[in-house]
Amino acid sequence: MSDSADPSGGRARRSRGGGGAARRAERMAPKLRPAPPIHREIPDLDLLPAATLDLIEANAETVLEEIGVRFTDNPQALARWADAGARIDGDRVRLPPGLARNLCATAPARFTQQARNPARSVEIGGRDLVLAPVYGPPFVRDLDGVRRYATLQDFRDFVKLAYMSPNLHHSGGTLCEPTDVPVNKRHLDMLLAHMTLSDKPFMGSVTDPARARDSVAMAEILFGGLAGRTVMTSLININSPLSFDATMMGALEIYAGANQATIISPFIVGGAMAPVSVVGTLTQVLAECMAGIAYAQLIRPGAPVIFGTFVTSIDMNSGAPTFGTPEAAQVTYGAGQLARRLGVPYRSAGAFCGAKLPDAQAGYESANSLNAGLLAGVNFMLHAAGWLEGGLVASFEKFVMDDDQLGILHRMARALPVDEGGQALDAMREVGPGGHYLGCAHTQAHYRDAFWRSDVLDYKPYETWEEEGARDTADLARARVRKLLSDYVAPPLDPAILTALEAFVAERKAAEQDAFS
Amino acid sequence: MSDSADPSGGRARRSRGGGGAARRAERMAPKLRPAPPIHREIPDLDLLPAATLDLIEANAETVLEEIGVRFTDNPQALARWADAGARIDGDRVRLPPGLARNLCATAPARFTQQARNPARSVEIGGRDLVLAPVYGPPFVRDLDGVRRYATLQDFRDFVKLAYMSPNLHHSGGTLCEPTDVPVNKRHLDMLLAHMTLSDKPFMGSVTDPARARDSVAMAEILFGGLAGRTVMTSLININSPLSFDATMMGALEIYAGANQATIISPFIVGGAMAPVSVVGTLTQVLAECMAGIAYAQLIRPGAPVIFGTFVTSIDMNSGAPTFGTPEAAQVTYGAGQLARRLGVPYRSAGAFCGAKLPDAQAGYESANSLNAGLLAGVNFMLHAAGWLEGGLVASFEKFVMDDDQLGILHRMARALPVDEGGQALDAMREVGPGGHYLGCAHTQAHYRDAFWRSDVLDYKPYETWEEEGARDTADLARARVRKLLSDYVAPPLDPAILTALEAFVAERKAAEQDAFS
Repeated sequence: MSDSADPSGGRARRSRGGGGAARRAERMAPKLRPAPPIHREIPDLDLLPAATLDLIEANAETVLEEIGVRFTDNPQALARWADAGARIDGDRVRLPPGLARNLCATAPARFTQQARNPARSVEIGGRDLVLAPVYGPPFVRDLDGVRRYATLQDFRDFVKLAYMSPNLHHSGGTLCEPTDVPVNKRHLDMLLAHMTLSDKPFMGSVTDPARARDSVAMAEILFGGLAGRTVMTSLININSPLSFDATMMGALEIYAGANQATIISPFIVGGAMAPVSVVGTLTQVLAECMAGIAYAQLIRPGAPVIFGTFVTSIDMNSGAPTFGTPEAAQVTYGAGQLARRLGVPYRSAGAFCGAKLPDAQAGYESANSLNAGLLAGVNFMLHAAGWLEGGLVASFEKFVMDDDQLGILHRMARALPVDEGGQALDAMREVGPGGHYLGCAHTQAHYRDAFWRSDVLDYKPYETWEEEGARDTADLARARVRKLLSDYVAPPLDPAILTALEAFVAERKAAEQDAFS
Repeated sequence: MSDSADPSGGRARRSRGGGGAARRAERMAPKLRPAPPIHREIPDLDLLPAATLDLIEANAETVLEEIGVRFTDNPQALARWADAGARIDGDRVRLPPGLARNLCATAPARFTQQARNPARSVEIGGRDLVLAPVYGPPFVRDLDGVRRYATLQDFRDFVKLAYMSPNLHHSGGTLCEPTDVPVNKRHLDMLLAHMTLSDKPFMGSVTDPARARDSVAMAEILFGGLAGRTVMTSLININSPLSFDATMMGALEIYAGANQATIISPFIVGGAMAPVSVVGTLTQVLAECMAGIAYAQLIRPGAPVIFGTFVTSIDMNSGAPTFGTPEAAQVTYGAGQLARRLGVPYRSAGAFCGAKLPDAQAGYESANSLNAGLLAGVNFMLHAAGWLEGGLVASFEKFVMDDDQLGILHRMARALPVDEGGQALDAMREVGPGGHYLGCAHTQAHYRDAFWRSDVLDYKPYETWEEEGARDTADLARARVRKLLSDYVAPPLDPAILTALEAFVAERKAAEQDAFS
């Protein structure tokens, strides 16, 4: 689980005249299977009828006009809204019918988030699905089964796992909170890890406008200037219901101004931050997303945005958030339909669960949510791997278990081949009634790629499985995590860029006093 | 886990003049939440484009005409096929284009399977989904975690769990093999258990035509004559590829002749019994189902039938069947579309998994399959609870875990309410930006039924969960199984019917020598 000493990898070594050792290391390195894009070739499930969507859209206009939204501690935002034609009353912003939707019209239907390795750049929107890992847990469940505060070392290990994933397209953002680093300096270490330990696209910091500015500055170093390119997608949470705070809006203003993408995302525990009804929740989600996206377009028309929806519902007995529930799936489907009608990319779903352990509950709940995400037309799926215990915990074991399941989404999104091999009439002719297909020519030609195969789950005969220790899924996953981390090799990075990034981090850290809250 | 001594329950006791004790027992009995019907108010996911379905249908006709199907050791069947216009060559039956589909036209699009308690009768077909438990495992994983051969006591316990389920509509058939009863007498004990320990609809025996006849005879006793009513749905497996054996066809002939329903079901491990391609597998499934359904209609036009599809694919490394895979889901969706185009009810999906334990693998795989089953338009879902280890094992723990998840399918099938309560505009007006919904009038009015709630999964705060022993899902499920079995009270049954059933079983057992294979 140690980091590579040289995040520049073999290329940097070779460029300094390194010889056989570097080449040998490259040869020995595990073959990375890069995550191919997911272009959905299957239909979405339009769960809600059009009449219900019409009603929700009309009601969302009523909410924005009658109730309005709050932009707290942000006089500039109020001034922008007033200029755009909204009615301002204190920090309350009331939007005349159609205003929000009209402003949303300048948001692109899809955009490219570039990665430093162009082969890892992602298309966000349309029929594509981009998968990104868990975001935000303060705790980890480590490989010794201990639940404890997360550290920077954990963070770096999760970046490596996401980098090595054949299914995740994105390195994510706050994979876990590196609580051993002062809160005002964490973002620097997290960004440095994403930029050096991975070459997949990543997210910027949103916990303070200054940290968003640091994110843009580091991205400029990494990419040699941005020149209008979108290289970060960052998570802007709305304080549901209907409230937009100055911190998140400050970060949004930085990112939108720099043409960086933002996910405008209501954060809803249904029953607490939204009504105990799916249609009511969808109404609020739509009103909030339209207001947030419209505001991003006021900052910079054309700024790339994503219609976000994070919805769980509260267990009315314990007050706990619940996951993998039918109501969460209904919101996921409905919000997808609303986002498509608005014409913007959609973020929702993830490997959500309330389970404390990577056990059956984790499996059922996560699979329910992942399946809904695929069929709801999600374009950007945050939390697609590693989420445990309602997002309080990032789990290494669950990370590789979920990641493995994402392989199913990759397969499910594809159209079925109907060429001669797909039709397989000759195989049926060859085998005939009562025969078997194990050795027939068609099977020989196609078996390698015919069926998806898990990298984690147990497919062994009972007796073999028992002899090998009767291991459950978490045991098998733990072994895979260890193997991946020990096989990790960093992607190459120009040493001059690495030096410049490290210098920036050192300088910014030196300029700040440590803060831990 | 003891059986009720009196399967006639309180009613019989009262009818014999029983007094306070019986009434007290009834009062103390746990309130059964009967499983409401599932009428899908949501759309199906039509995964395959119409052009692919057209191609599959054309190719299935080619298969039936060119390759044909075998009806082994069954001269009567060959004579029936010849009369109907098929070309016979040995035991090979070749069907001219359109013959099978035309014969299928007399099969009803939907039918009612009556239960002895009319409130438990089920509609099979159309937009309905009927859920039935696991079928066939020779082993159980018992509550001490021991994997062992199943017994009649296990069987009876599973019947009780299915009876008490608020989600399962059906008592199923061979919930597990009672291996402690001679193989030629098992069906009598199994039927007696379904008929006395439950009042939900059930399945008949198919392992021998004589056992099918016993099933019909016992049903006649239970229902006081059948008078054309359909009171059993039984599972007729096809020996894929394209082969129909005399045992299963003998049972089919008995059932169809008595207007009892049959599931005509290819049993396919893809790569072994069908080509390693989804479109090829669907072609074979359609050809097999059409031939089997057509044959049932030759026996009795109008006999109720179900288009069955049991498909798993083989792991090309270990040779093991795999579950919850994308290919299985693709077949499930595609076969549903083909069954709807054929105009007959559809059976597929289930809580399938290859896992040896009720662990995360079991959860992921089962949820993948359950979700596909709902959205694929399945009308009859066998194996919806209790399936473990590729169907070799019936698990008590997994039974209640799966059953709990079925509650999600019940919820997901419903349309979202759009009345004033559903729209919840007043709640948003009352709460306003930055507030919370926990105590508002709308929440007070709706919270009880607003969200689905698990009966098994853990929703507790971490500290409480840890104090209570840090139990995983299997632990929680085990406790629930124990509670349910100890709470079990048999549904009332006319004592005269019970006596007659017991006499029939005793007589039939006495007439047969024990056989164990």
